[in-house]
Amino acid sequence: MVQFSLYSSLLKPDLQQMLQEGDVDGLAEFCNALYAGVVAEVAAGVVAEVIEELDDEAAWNVLTNCGPERQAEILKFLSLPYQIQLVDHIDRTSLSRIIEEMSPDDRVDLLERLDPGHVESLLPLIAQAERSDIRKLLSYPEDSAGAIMTTEYASLPANITAEEALRRLRIQAPSRETIYYIYITDEGRHLIGFLSLRKLIQSSPETKLAELMERDVISVRVDDDQEFVANEIARFDFIAIPVVDNQNRLVGIVTHDDAADVLLEEAAEDAQLLAAVALLEDSYLETPFFALARKRGVWLIILLAAASVTAYALSRYEQQEAGNWMVLFIPLVLTSGGDAGAQSATLIIRALALDETRGKFGVIVSRELRIALFLGFVIGTLSLLVAYCLVTAVDRALVVGLTVFAVVGIGTFSGSMLPLGLQKLGLDPALMSTPLIAALVDVVGVIIFYEMALRVLG
Amino acid sequence: MVQFSLYSSLLKPDLQQMLQEGDVDGLAEFCNALYAGVVAEVAAGVVAEVIEELDDEAAWNVLTNCGPERQAEILKFLSLPYQIQLVDHIDRTSLSRIIEEMSPDDRVDLLERLDPGHVESLLPLIAQAERSDIRKLLSYPEDSAGAIMTTEYASLPANITAEEALRRLRIQAPSRETIYYIYITDEGRHLIGFLSLRKLIQSSPETKLAELMERDVISVRVDDDQEFVANEIARFDFIAIPVVDNQNRLVGIVTHDDAADVLLEEAAEDAQLLAAVALLEDSYLETPFFALARKRGVWLIILLAAASVTAYALSRYEQQEAGNWMVLFIPLVLTSGGDAGAQSATLIIRALALDETRGKFGVIVSRELRIALFLGFVIGTLSLLVAYCLVTAVDRALVVGLTVFAVVGIGTFSGSMLPLGLQKLGLDPALMSTPLIAALVDVVGVIIFYEMALRVLG
Repeated sequence: MVQFSLYSSLLKPDLQQMLQEGDVDGLAEFCNALYAGVVAEVAAGVVAEVIEELDDEAAWNVLTNCGPERQAEILKFLSLPYQIQLVDHIDRTSLSRIIEEMSPDDRVDLLERLDPGHVESLLPLIAQAERSDIRKLLSYPEDSAGAIMTTEYASLPANITAEEALRRLRIQAPSRETIYYIYITDEGRHLIGFLSLRKLIQSSPETKLAELMERDVISVRVDDDQEFVANEIARFDFIAIPVVDNQNRLVGIVTHDDAADVLLEEAAEDAQLLAAVALLEDSYLETPFFALARKRGVWLIILLAAASVTAYALSRYEQQEAGNWMVLFIPLVLTSGGDAGAQSATLIIRALALDETRGKFGVIVSRELRIALFLGFVIGTLSLLVAYCLVTAVDRALVVGLTVFAVVGIGTFSGSMLPLGLQKLGLDPALMSTPLIAALVDVVGVIIFYEMALRVLG
Repeated sequence: MVQFSLYSSLLKPDLQQMLQEGDVDGLAEFCNALYAGVVAEVAAGVVAEVIEELDDEAAWNVLTNCGPERQAEILKFLSLPYQIQLVDHIDRTSLSRIIEEMSPDDRVDLLERLDPGHVESLLPLIAQAERSDIRKLLSYPEDSAGAIMTTEYASLPANITAEEALRRLRIQAPSRETIYYIYITDEGRHLIGFLSLRKLIQSSPETKLAELMERDVISVRVDDDQEFVANEIARFDFIAIPVVDNQNRLVGIVTHDDAADVLLEEAAEDAQLLAAVALLEDSYLETPFFALARKRGVWLIILLAAASVTAYALSRYEQQEAGNWMVLFIPLVLTSGGDAGAQSATLIIRALALDETRGKFGVIVSRELRIALFLGFVIGTLSLLVAYCLVTAVDRALVVGLTVFAVVGIGTFSGSMLPLGLQKLGLDPALMSTPLIAALVDVVGVIIFYEMALRVLG
């Protein structure tokens, strides 16, 4: 089998030479020839990979050697930030042709990221049908089903035969995102049934679709959250799910690949928030230096403020004579609480994202409470032993052990309850990042440690 | 549209009453009637949701009221741990019938988790064809393409016409996972081409498949890692990808839904490892209490050992007079380094998982180095101000500021380099969990803090 990453590395030097020599025929061949024996999407993906290695001006010079349809296919496989750079080099007329050829969801993704003034200047050049489609899709709120759906679905009326359906599908096929799922609508475009192409080709030609179709169609609303939509697709292993408006009129479909992207994006966002990084809009390498520094710096400053509170709490105990041996164990006490909190927060936030927790609130509280006691006991006992080795005094070791028991217990329990609380308040539970939980536990930890020492050691 | 979660809550009380009354007709209707107007998978999903609320013995009592085909369909939508519990109540003969009806990838998922002795006692009861298929799939290493593929793909020879192809597909359809992607093989089962059903139905009936098919098929090897396979499917938005052996013979396909599961599982695993939790095999709520406590406790103990090293390092400086005011800032100094390290580790590990980093090693090193200096400067300066407010001594504040500059810089840089290093060594980069990086930075931080104080304050 052909290794396509090998393709890319072989093609790049050739391409640069062709650009230098102005070899128009060669460049046109590069854009088009690959397509001969290969699925169109794969070829476009490979061309995009090679092109993305070039700077954006050179990339557009290559792409001028093929037609708008192929340009749109290749653009789809370039990353969004690269698409936006590239667009600056494309004249308005060429760009409007490309946009007409792009699939509705891909072009709206791009247009949403462009300067609104630029978009307004482009729209008059775009054909009427596409233009009104764009205006409609752009009007849906970000992160809604409407924003990720495509309007290129296959639909048929219920009163035709299987044979007639196949004939019409052949005509629809070239312009539809998928024809494997067929949606049955009435004259008012209301969604009344569903039929898979698999079932259609197995039916006898004269059967009416009304007899073949399933009437109980699972659909989502155009204003449903994109995560809910993606979870519905994943739940039933669908290739696509229909999107309806509030009168049950079919307005689009969301396909499995876009749903998978949504779920992965969500996982990446959770991971970032958990590590106290403000959300990156693009991938790590595509985020510019200062944006990256800012999104990390902001949180480090917040956490510094929290750590200052811990320092202040310590300063309240500074005068006491007792404290000198205690210094050794401050990092240990605080770290064990923070680490325990990070564990439970991560587990609960992932469970919330995958929608495992519905109606299980009580179960989670009781189980995290038991785990908090158990882990507090184990880690507390071990800390007691560690402390005894370092200070060889039973009472002091006991203070360390008891403090760690309390701090691990509190860390574990609050690490699970705080994200659940945020969720109940309608906020993103991942905002309760693990360093933030650790910072909260730190303040409590210092107070417990010194108060415990005062009580036990007098 | 019907709300299926509503269905579940409505059905449950009815079901419990039917079980109590031994209402066999009612139970049979519950298992079968839903299927009337609904896509089979949706109905099975709903039945599974209601059943999973019951205890496993009652669940099997319900399922005895339908045939093995429906039982297998419903089982697929139950979680694996629940499937395993349920299996204990099923007699061997019934179980072997169900296993025969399950799709090859689902049944291997289940059999891999059962006791090997139990599996061996079941195999003789299973039909010859399924049995050899099971033995073959069970032999592939976990996490390989072979372990997640299904053998129920649609394949055709190249020398038949489009019309004949459609006729044969109609026969294959009921037993295939998908018929939308058709793989063309020669007499030796070698994969020689690919054809989509979309293209097939658009072709004129007398065209030979040899003329229609794409010859440059993207495939994966049966021993390729499941993550690589899932990323290939996501890259090209495929519905399925063919799996070949080392002689390019077609042995199975991996479908988009299983690929999405692999990518999500991987994201969940990374999140757990990053938070220093040993990998859970099941979801949070399905993991038994002591397994969960152990998988968290093990890491807390390792981190406690690391924190003990920090305590030991502090004990080396204990005798010095200088140190009392420094105590206030120990948590602040250590936390800022750990938090900065957690940020960069999380970003790099996610970028590695999504395969964004290939060939970009140099770029990442230079960029993290610059970010380390930048963030170190910003957070260091702010810490200097915080310290001045608390101790009102410029030299001491300077020591805190310089230490935080160094610790944030080291945390940021090592947080990105350590996961990259693990990757280069062929290990899982997420093993470099954020608490572990924090623990390493802690030890270095204590040494820098005290040495800096000695040098600056004398």
